[in-house]
Amino acid sequence: MTASTADALRHAPLTRVLRALALGETSSAALTAACLDAIDGENPQLRAWTHVDADGALAAARASDARRAQGQPLGRLDGVPLAVKDNLDVAGLPTGLGLPGPAPVAAEDAHAVGRLRGAGAVILGKTALDEAAFGTVGRNPHHGDVRNPRFPGKACGGSSAGAAAAVAAGHASAAIGTDTLGAIRIPAAFCGLAGLRPTFGEISGRGMAPALRRLDTVGVLARAVEDIAPLLQVLAGYDPGDPRSRMRRTPFALPDWQPGSLRVGVVRGLDALGVTGSVVDVFERAVARAGAGLGALHAIDLDLAPLDIATTRRAALLLMEAEILAAHGDRLAGSSPRLRGLLAFAEGKRAVDYVAADRRLDVHVVRMRQLFDRVDVLLLPTVSAPPPDLGAEEPSNLADLSALASLAGCPALSLPLGDGIGLQLVGARGSDLRLLELGQILACVIDAMQ
Amino acid sequence: MTASTADALRHAPLTRVLRALALGETSSAALTAACLDAIDGENPQLRAWTHVDADGALAAARASDARRAQGQPLGRLDGVPLAVKDNLDVAGLPTGLGLPGPAPVAAEDAHAVGRLRGAGAVILGKTALDEAAFGTVGRNPHHGDVRNPRFPGKACGGSSAGAAAAVAAGHASAAIGTDTLGAIRIPAAFCGLAGLRPTFGEISGRGMAPALRRLDTVGVLARAVEDIAPLLQVLAGYDPGDPRSRMRRTPFALPDWQPGSLRVGVVRGLDALGVTGSVVDVFERAVARAGAGLGALHAIDLDLAPLDIATTRRAALLLMEAEILAAHGDRLAGSSPRLRGLLAFAEGKRAVDYVAADRRLDVHVVRMRQLFDRVDVLLLPTVSAPPPDLGAEEPSNLADLSALASLAGCPALSLPLGDGIGLQLVGARGSDLRLLELGQILACVIDAMQ
Repeated sequence: MTASTADALRHAPLTRVLRALALGETSSAALTAACLDAIDGENPQLRAWTHVDADGALAAARASDARRAQGQPLGRLDGVPLAVKDNLDVAGLPTGLGLPGPAPVAAEDAHAVGRLRGAGAVILGKTALDEAAFGTVGRNPHHGDVRNPRFPGKACGGSSAGAAAAVAAGHASAAIGTDTLGAIRIPAAFCGLAGLRPTFGEISGRGMAPALRRLDTVGVLARAVEDIAPLLQVLAGYDPGDPRSRMRRTPFALPDWQPGSLRVGVVRGLDALGVTGSVVDVFERAVARAGAGLGALHAIDLDLAPLDIATTRRAALLLMEAEILAAHGDRLAGSSPRLRGLLAFAEGKRAVDYVAADRRLDVHVVRMRQLFDRVDVLLLPTVSAPPPDLGAEEPSNLADLSALASLAGCPALSLPLGDGIGLQLVGARGSDLRLLELGQILACVIDAMQ
Repeated sequence: MTASTADALRHAPLTRVLRALALGETSSAALTAACLDAIDGENPQLRAWTHVDADGALAAARASDARRAQGQPLGRLDGVPLAVKDNLDVAGLPTGLGLPGPAPVAAEDAHAVGRLRGAGAVILGKTALDEAAFGTVGRNPHHGDVRNPRFPGKACGGSSAGAAAAVAAGHASAAIGTDTLGAIRIPAAFCGLAGLRPTFGEISGRGMAPALRRLDTVGVLARAVEDIAPLLQVLAGYDPGDPRSRMRRTPFALPDWQPGSLRVGVVRGLDALGVTGSVVDVFERAVARAGAGLGALHAIDLDLAPLDIATTRRAALLLMEAEILAAHGDRLAGSSPRLRGLLAFAEGKRAVDYVAADRRLDVHVVRMRQLFDRVDVLLLPTVSAPPPDLGAEEPSNLADLSALASLAGCPALSLPLGDGIGLQLVGARGSDLRLLELGQILACVIDAMQ
């Protein structure tokens, strides 16, 4: 058990870390210390973390090591160091939300954080995000823009920017973030990670700062797609404290597809949707290979133009802006001119405008539900463009392809295709585990492609 | 098979009608003709119906009789004459919604209506409601107030006023209505019927005119509680065309309670909630008898004061008003000064006010969900007062006790206690069938009490 082993494990998939801890190749304390050292050295430049709880993390790591040494019962994630996005409450730490000024210190853990702790995980601290979680590139005028460890000089993606950067930099074995229109999947793609937005309602949102309650969901960023299922199993479950938590009557459906009979919808006409040529090329190559993994691919070509994503996006943004105003109005003093400008738009809107926008989202939900009567899984790029240059103007459409699943409550998984481009798998609600199994198969195909 | 048999069956429970049809004691055509005759004679005074489709109903009845005579497969409701509230689409008929002026003719059946037809039911026509489904007493300045057949001189209850009156008067074997804050349960109580608001999302709302999408649900009014389950089984099911339809992964949970171990929450302190003395007396007597039906009653006294129903009600009304404006704004010309006055309040509200009200509803949902971690079923009166006199001013709090369940998405059943007073059973989401079984047991106890 050496410091160099621990340092190497900083970059390993979470499942590998679990194995190393079980075999005694490293200790939680050694791994946690290695993570904290790396954060200390790299965060001034990376800006991935807003608060690091070194003492708390080391104490939790030592407690985990003691449980293991004494043969006490262990949780599923015992001793694994994790990062938490700074719009989720961690008891005793401020919930910064990317806003300026003093942040309120959380009295209780968010439900998801509590589930992680209950499974023995080590919470290292809180990770940076776009201002008020309202952005797609990881920009923050108060704490500094988050850097992309995987593709330096490129935007990190947002709003779970620090969560992605921390995992990509080997500061944590995985991270939990939040996803409204794509805030987990966009930085996952840009930083070369796997990211899951689960079915809406599966993970409690209690203790998450709202952006748009109808869409907000807690999710996972990890180095490998197989890391996600253990995290999801710990995180998911009914919570009466979340008005949108789903009381499941059966366990997560087991993967239930038959090779050769899976109905795979492949989104075509990407150029017309404004997707960059390089993204189209990489996506098409991945789809061409996917048949090898999924058996005979029952490809169903899909045209998304009738969904009119741009109109739905504008409606969703209005709802989000009004919600940020209503939920965080008292914390917006000192916010940037950009954010104030966006919110001013919603300030002038009436209640009936809100309802009209909300009804627009309903139209989208119905179209997506009808689509999933025809296909089992949908393949499309995660983001319409590769990561923009760091500091470049934020494109308005970065979340268009990820918002599709958000708006319908569907689970969506992003897999890295290289160069900051992501392959997105979207499934019907509740099909999270099937999506993860398909993701693992496709990840092998993609690795073979590169 | 005589006309007098058919006329007697007009007043029988639906389950009795099914038996009579199966045994050949009557035909669907005879029963339907008897209903149409009664409507013809009584509706000018009763004002329960806005549109009667005599030709369509008789044709459907004859077709049912022909199926039966020829030994063809029969639906679960084959030949049973039913009423449909006039805010649900019936193909070829106008959807009046209680508003003045020409109503649009529906091109398609509402999903729930289609399910009924698919089960062989005979759709007699459309029943009256409060203007824009926004009211609790059955008042309508355009079509005339609906009369209460069971307690003449008293308000019929609303907004499913005509549906209740039609069933109480023996014009239909049962009716489907809609319930936002209590619009099925209030008229059920006032007219001496059983009424169920099912778990939110179980019955598709496609083809229902919206009042508040977050709460609107299709439900059932019937003469006997045992009539409800056959209707519910036909009506419930996933529909991708409704953005809030719930994709159930298991069939309706079977009744799963053990006599003696049921945790029954009984709402106390009703006086402080503004409930009329006579309602409190009748309710307390029913509860005192309930133990005989449910085994040892694990009564848990509940104080609803912390729920602050009045504040939540005001928030819900704002949401409802904004939604009526957004959804039906073009049909409100010529509406009454009362409705215009109510809607004017919402016209002046901003998007952020809407979000604040919507967040208030979330607080209520969480409190109700936490409550159902402690109890299996909740007993309370359906309405805080007996039916007001016909034409009296509409009390503002008539929906307070029914809104409790609506706001939480819970199923709620109203049983008649006599004098227009209702006993309400509220269950956790998904416990509809258990609620119906408990309701049948309590109905026996209540009958013995009277």
